[in-house]
Amino acid sequence: MTIFADILSTVFERRYRPWGPARRDSRPIEAVVADLIGSTGEVSGTGLARQIIDRYGEMEEDERLAFFRHVATDLAIVPDRLRMALDAYEAEGQSKETYRAVMAAAEPPRQELIRRLNQVPGATHALVQMRADLLRLARGDEALLALDLDFRHLFASWFNRGFLVLRRISWESPAHILEKIIAYEAVHAIESWRDLRLRLEPTDRRCYAFFHPAMPDEPLIFVEVALTRGIAKSVQALLADDRRQLASDEADTAVFYSISNCQDGLAGISFGNSLIKQVASDLVAALPGIRTFVTLSPIPGFSHWLAGAHPGLTPASDKQLLSLAAFYLIRAKREDGLPMDPVARFHLGNGALVHQVHARADTSEKGMRQSAGVMVNYLYDLKQVAQNHEGFATAHDVAASSEIAGLAAAAEKITT
Amino acid sequence: MTIFADILSTVFERRYRPWGPARRDSRPIEAVVADLIGSTGEVSGTGLARQIIDRYGEMEEDERLAFFRHVATDLAIVPDRLRMALDAYEAEGQSKETYRAVMAAAEPPRQELIRRLNQVPGATHALVQMRADLLRLARGDEALLALDLDFRHLFASWFNRGFLVLRRISWESPAHILEKIIAYEAVHAIESWRDLRLRLEPTDRRCYAFFHPAMPDEPLIFVEVALTRGIAKSVQALLADDRRQLASDEADTAVFYSISNCQDGLAGISFGNSLIKQVASDLVAALPGIRTFVTLSPIPGFSHWLAGAHPGLTPASDKQLLSLAAFYLIRAKREDGLPMDPVARFHLGNGALVHQVHARADTSEKGMRQSAGVMVNYLYDLKQVAQNHEGFATAHDVAASSEIAGLAAAAEKITT
Amino acid sequence: MTIFADILSTVFERRYRPWGPARRDSRPIEAVVADLIGSTGEVSGTGLARQIIDRYGEMEEDERLAFFRHVATDLAIVPDRLRMALDAYEAEGQSKETYRAVMAAAEPPRQELIRRLNQVPGATHALVQMRADLLRLARGDEALLALDLDFRHLFASWFNRGFLVLRRISWESPAHILEKIIAYEAVHAIESWRDLRLRLEPTDRRCYAFFHPAMPDEPLIFVEVALTRGIAKSVQALLADDRRQLASDEADTAVFYSISNCQDGLAGISFGNSLIKQVASDLVAALPGIRTFVTLSPIPGFSHWLAGAHPGLTPASDKQLLSLAAFYLIRAKREDGLPMDPVARFHLGNGALVHQVHARADTSEKGMRQSAGVMVNYLYDLKQVAQNHEGFATAHDVAASSEIAGLAAAAEKITT
Amino acid sequence: MTIFADILSTVFERRYRPWGPARRDSRPIEAVVADLIGSTGEVSGTGLARQIIDRYGEMEEDERLAFFRHVATDLAIVPDRLRMALDAYEAEGQSKETYRAVMAAAEPPRQELIRRLNQVPGATHALVQMRADLLRLARGDEALLALDLDFRHLFASWFNRGFLVLRRISWESPAHILEKIIAYEAVHAIESWRDLRLRLEPTDRRCYAFFHPAMPDEPLIFVEVALTRGIAKSVQALLADDRRQLASDEADTAVFYSISNCQDGLAGISFGNSLIKQVASDLVAALPGIRTFVTLSPIPGFSHWLAGAHPGLTPASDKQLLSLAAFYLIRAKREDGLPMDPVARFHLGNGALVHQVHARADTSEKGMRQSAGVMVNYLYDLKQVAQNHEGFATAHDVAASSEIAGLAAAAEKITT
Repeated sequence: MTIFADILSTVFERRYRPWGPARRDSRPIEAVVADLIGSTGEVSGTGLARQIIDRYGEMEEDERLAFFRHVATDLAIVPDRLRMALDAYEAEGQSKETYRAVMAAAEPPRQELIRRLNQVPGATHALVQMRADLLRLARGDEALLALDLDFRHLFASWFNRGFLVLRRISWESPAHILEKIIAYEAVHAIESWRDLRLRLEPTDRRCYAFFHPAMPDEPLIFVEVALTRGIAKSVQALLADDRRQLASDEADTAVFYSISNCQDGLAGISFGNSLIKQVASDLVAALPGIRTFVTLSPIPGFSHWLAGAHPGLTPASDKQLLSLAAFYLIRAKREDGLPMDPVARFHLGNGALVHQVHARADTSEKGMRQSAGVMVNYLYDLKQVAQNHEGFATAHDVAASSEIAGLAAAAEKITT
Repeated sequence: MTIFADILSTVFERRYRPWGPARRDSRPIEAVVADLIGSTGEVSGTGLARQIIDRYGEMEEDERLAFFRHVATDLAIVPDRLRMALDAYEAEGQSKETYRAVMAAAEPPRQELIRRLNQVPGATHALVQMRADLLRLARGDEALLALDLDFRHLFASWFNRGFLVLRRISWESPAHILEKIIAYEAVHAIESWRDLRLRLEPTDRRCYAFFHPAMPDEPLIFVEVALTRGIAKSVQALLADDRRQLASDEADTAVFYSISNCQDGLAGISFGNSLIKQVASDLVAALPGIRTFVTLSPIPGFSHWLAGAHPGLTPASDKQLLSLAAFYLIRAKREDGLPMDPVARFHLGNGALVHQVHARADTSEKGMRQSAGVMVNYLYDLKQVAQNHEGFATAHDVAASSEIAGLAAAAEKITT
Repeated sequence: MTIFADILSTVFERRYRPWGPARRDSRPIEAVVADLIGSTGEVSGTGLARQIIDRYGEMEEDERLAFFRHVATDLAIVPDRLRMALDAYEAEGQSKETYRAVMAAAEPPRQELIRRLNQVPGATHALVQMRADLLRLARGDEALLALDLDFRHLFASWFNRGFLVLRRISWESPAHILEKIIAYEAVHAIESWRDLRLRLEPTDRRCYAFFHPAMPDEPLIFVEVALTRGIAKSVQALLADDRRQLASDEADTAVFYSISNCQDGLAGISFGNSLIKQVASDLVAALPGIRTFVTLSPIPGFSHWLAGAHPGLTPASDKQLLSLAAFYLIRAKREDGLPMDPVARFHLGNGALVHQVHARADTSEKGMRQSAGVMVNYLYDLKQVAQNHEGFATAHDVAASSEIAGLAAAAEKITT
Repeated sequence: MTIFADILSTVFERRYRPWGPARRDSRPIEAVVADLIGSTGEVSGTGLARQIIDRYGEMEEDERLAFFRHVATDLAIVPDRLRMALDAYEAEGQSKETYRAVMAAAEPPRQELIRRLNQVPGATHALVQMRADLLRLARGDEALLALDLDFRHLFASWFNRGFLVLRRISWESPAHILEKIIAYEAVHAIESWRDLRLRLEPTDRRCYAFFHPAMPDEPLIFVEVALTRGIAKSVQALLADDRRQLASDEADTAVFYSISNCQDGLAGISFGNSLIKQVASDLVAALPGIRTFVTLSPIPGFSHWLAGAHPGLTPASDKQLLSLAAFYLIRAKREDGLPMDPVARFHLGNGALVHQVHARADTSEKGMRQSAGVMVNYLYDLKQVAQNHEGFATAHDVAASSEIAGLAAAAEKITT
């Protein structure tokens, strides 16, 4: 284990010393791109790649858009070339060489461009940021969205689960990582370093993040966990400064109360599922007393749905409010048959089930606005996760506790 | 920098604890493979992938061959499906969705299989070994060779230069790494731990290897370097136990006297070029006194060529022998116009030039047999490397010193 | 080097698991102390030591005072026993055994007590804090002050320069270390994490601390350094947010603008001298462009001295103010012949010389109050440090630049 | 935990760059020593200390002896000075100042010399080696033996249990550490790297060592452990290449089969007791299935004792042989009442009990010679260790199993 640390303590990207300074061309960037794709070896390639990355970094938005347009349009596949390769592949009996030609024609040159840009030490993060720009600039533009598919295809390969590293984030973590945790927290904002400390240092708090070895300073996704006795019913209570802290071996439940993606440029590459399972697996090994894994999750679409489905309805009681929330979570569906609530889709897709709903669980302004204060626990039952997932994936079956099912049934009787 | 070590000191793959033990199916492996490719999420996927890797590991050669045949044949692209996708792509004006369909049809399911197998922590090395098996078993089988192209395509992406880590190997390195250096040394065999120590510990010796973060216990390629005053002319003198050791700051020359690839399963993924340049770059920063970077290289094809080109010729003198060697290196070409000698092709392709040849430079049995004891220095001149590479890559120009050019010219006058 | 990290990554103290929980006695602590000193081996010793440390940790101030009184009084040397041992030592010709008896009688049992308490992993920091308590409680009590000499004697041995580790503190350092830097900064207060970041992250800032391996979470002393072109004349300018940041290789001067001791319990164990020299030595190796090492130091006693020496005097000009400051620094002496100013004593004792004084150099409320805004640069001239030190140590010679000497001479002509 | 590694990854001693090269005096070393002891600060001190260490390193044996003689004789305590200080201490009522004078007079200047030598980074190991020289050269010389008491006194403080780091030694440990394990193994010699590997790599083997942070490349003591089912009865069976290896969680017993001290210069500073207990404590936490901790120990004095106590006796049976061995272990005593066997004294002093004896347990030439092949298991019973230790330490009670007691009783009936 230490060997790994040992091996990697040499961070190439930070101490890389090129053979002379990166030279800049006066040529248009399109010419440099063509040169990089056409170059026969790494010798000149790395210098060209560095130049493109550096120049991209200094571009204005409109220049970036022009750059993406060029790459999307001029470095796309050539259908006729691919058809010819396919013909030869079939005619000549699927040999190695004919297959190689199909592969070459089926892959647009822009994929090779992205791979070659990545030869530059430190380039991976730059490419992730490049894709974030692309996603922002692409809106509606089909050619750019197609280009994005190439980025995403390569990133899915590079950020394969097998390459990620799980790392506990604690009050002993480096400050420059912690400031990113503060910045990236998307669910329950962290207001200050003191606030951060309260989420990391107490014995009943945990935080874990995935990292990629080529981006060691950038968390990809992180989850915040509270260790509790019994299932948490209120996020304000959970985060209260003056709560009684538990010793970690007193806890019987791990509550995942916040999951945040950190990199816009990795949109569509899913890490959350792996993260929750890896963390649960690690916690159960370290703290055998923990038997229950739940979330304490927002229901972001509830108020909006309620206003549309039952205009003017003001729930008469907590009971009624919770019934409606349960109904929304497990019965309100999109056209494709999946649950309307995005957080529900995420956890159900992971194999969790809808376990409990709680009123006055998030009394923040945001919590009241989006879900009238209601929150939900999704339960990760280790023995049922695979089966739940299967049912959801194949038949859109929504797993729920009998309590939730009962509440949802009661909701049907509510009239405006 | 230490942060990076810190982040990665948690090696997931070694402490990974699955949600219960990997279950084994009684189904044929083809069914499990189909299941893995078809699975909609990671939940069941990782378990299936683990099962396939475990079962593959226990297979006999013929079972492995059958497994590869299945993957090569049944998980290939379907040309008609790809043609239809292409038609739609052109007809509908190259939208994101039509492009996505082309990508899906152009990539054989076996690529997705390999990627999903790699989700299992630790699987990367298993996949590299799987490809080594494939290369051994494929000989001549076009379908299997086509399958290998898919492995190679993915590995080129995974083992991108930007993901590799350069690491010095020293007498303070872990023993389980060092024993692999002993095992993998391909040029000048290391006979014992004592012999190894003599190549690592002295102040005028260096050794560097590339590693991949997902295979921290496996060097990918390594180079052994001797720091000298002046250019080495004999490998036996270079490696002699009783030579005078230099303090590292006395040296003016770095001699790369051995480069060894370690992983059969990474054949065709070239690291040597990057390795030499990175090491040269690091050495020049650490030891500014070093101004010359050369190899002391074998000429593996010389004797064989000489016997064919000049049957019965016994060189009358060292001079004549060296003339013939110089001629062989820079004039003897294959049909494709590239030099006949494989080591020459490697270094010339990197941008080095043929600098000097020496008689009685490798008096080992192997050295006498393959090149009559002659060795060659390829010179890496930092200012000319890019230009040399370009000339070689585009016009097959072989860069050589005037000394070598003169020797080669003299060789033309030698008659049997 | 990584080996060292590797070896030490196992922090015994944090994962130490005793053979069963520490048992608590109902006996008075004096009895447990007696038992620990008398115990013949470590077996029971560690448990007793742990018990004492735990119980001490829970004591109120008056109980701690009683504890110290007991240790100071009842575990002191016994003069008659020492005299007898001395007699035997001389009578029997200074044998090993008679010397051993002298050693045993000359060392008070309380030193052995402190050493045995330190057998408990993690105890070192607890003992340092114990001494901080002692120093606070001892005021004026000769017996307790004598006990403190024993602590100090042992700490001087344990915190020997050879055991300390210099460590750069950066924005990548662990947050729990950084919060201590904020807390311990004694010269120019750090107001917030943002303020801290401005002292750590810019390319022209450095911070270094000494650590002891047995207290890895506790800096012992740290120094903050600004890299500048030319000698800094104002601490507000030096720390200004909107200053132009230098690339580190543009700098020609390193300004030590703050040195803070962190551990009250290590009072009298001097680290500052070593720290400055080690840091200067490291900087000169890493950044050869840096040729000048100076401080930008407060003159804490100037205003007080001025009010006493020249009651009612208001300097008529900057020139006059600086003359008086220069005079104060190099001419105003205590009865023992040493300079009146404590900071001057520290740097002159290290071998620095008084180089320049600046008006309006610290315009903070504290700076105006204690020295009318004047600050001083002490110069560490590597070639003269040993000689300056010698002169100061043996003859109280104060080294100063001719500029300072001239200013001080001019001060003599100032009359109230 | 990683923080600690992080902090210490900067190994000061290896990158220490003094302010200019260490200067050499032409003065006799006695003058340099006097200068170092008399120096008032560290400024010149470190240079002087370095000079002394360097010059010592180059001395011949006779020069070293002369050096030790000087230090032993001329830097000893001055009894009259100490008597005067004692008088003042009592007369003036034990003030801080009078106590300081006693401390100063009671400590010989040579202790301060050793401490100041240790200010040089890396000096700790040099001082340990210096003491090894002293012990070798001192034989019988009372003044030198007295000097050794000062070394030992300081080392006991520096190598306090609280400063040591336990580290597992594995096949992934650095080669330069492993070669020291090979060299220092004192009980069952390690013949080769292959042999070493067989003691480190199998799942049922462990090795642990203590290190001191200031000597990270030097193990102080190490223990080799075999994990077994049931108590091992033969060291050859235990070490056999072809034994069935256990998975670590199959084991119920940990057998400490070899403990080796590594540093002659730390003679008399006991680590073995702490090491065994720390390792047992770590093993029980990591492998809860392990319930029994025993040694498999040689009985080095048995044959010698038997030849003296029962001249000419050849045991008639294994039973008789074991009876005699049991008798020897628990009944044969030295004049001071302690067991004759040195290994027995060590483990009994640690609180172990004599558990079983086995015939044909060490059939090596050495084993047959020193104990007729008999070996013994000492049992570390966690619940009785403290009590056993107490009985042994205070009343020389030897703890033994009833089996051993019975065997010893039977021995009394054996007549020659």
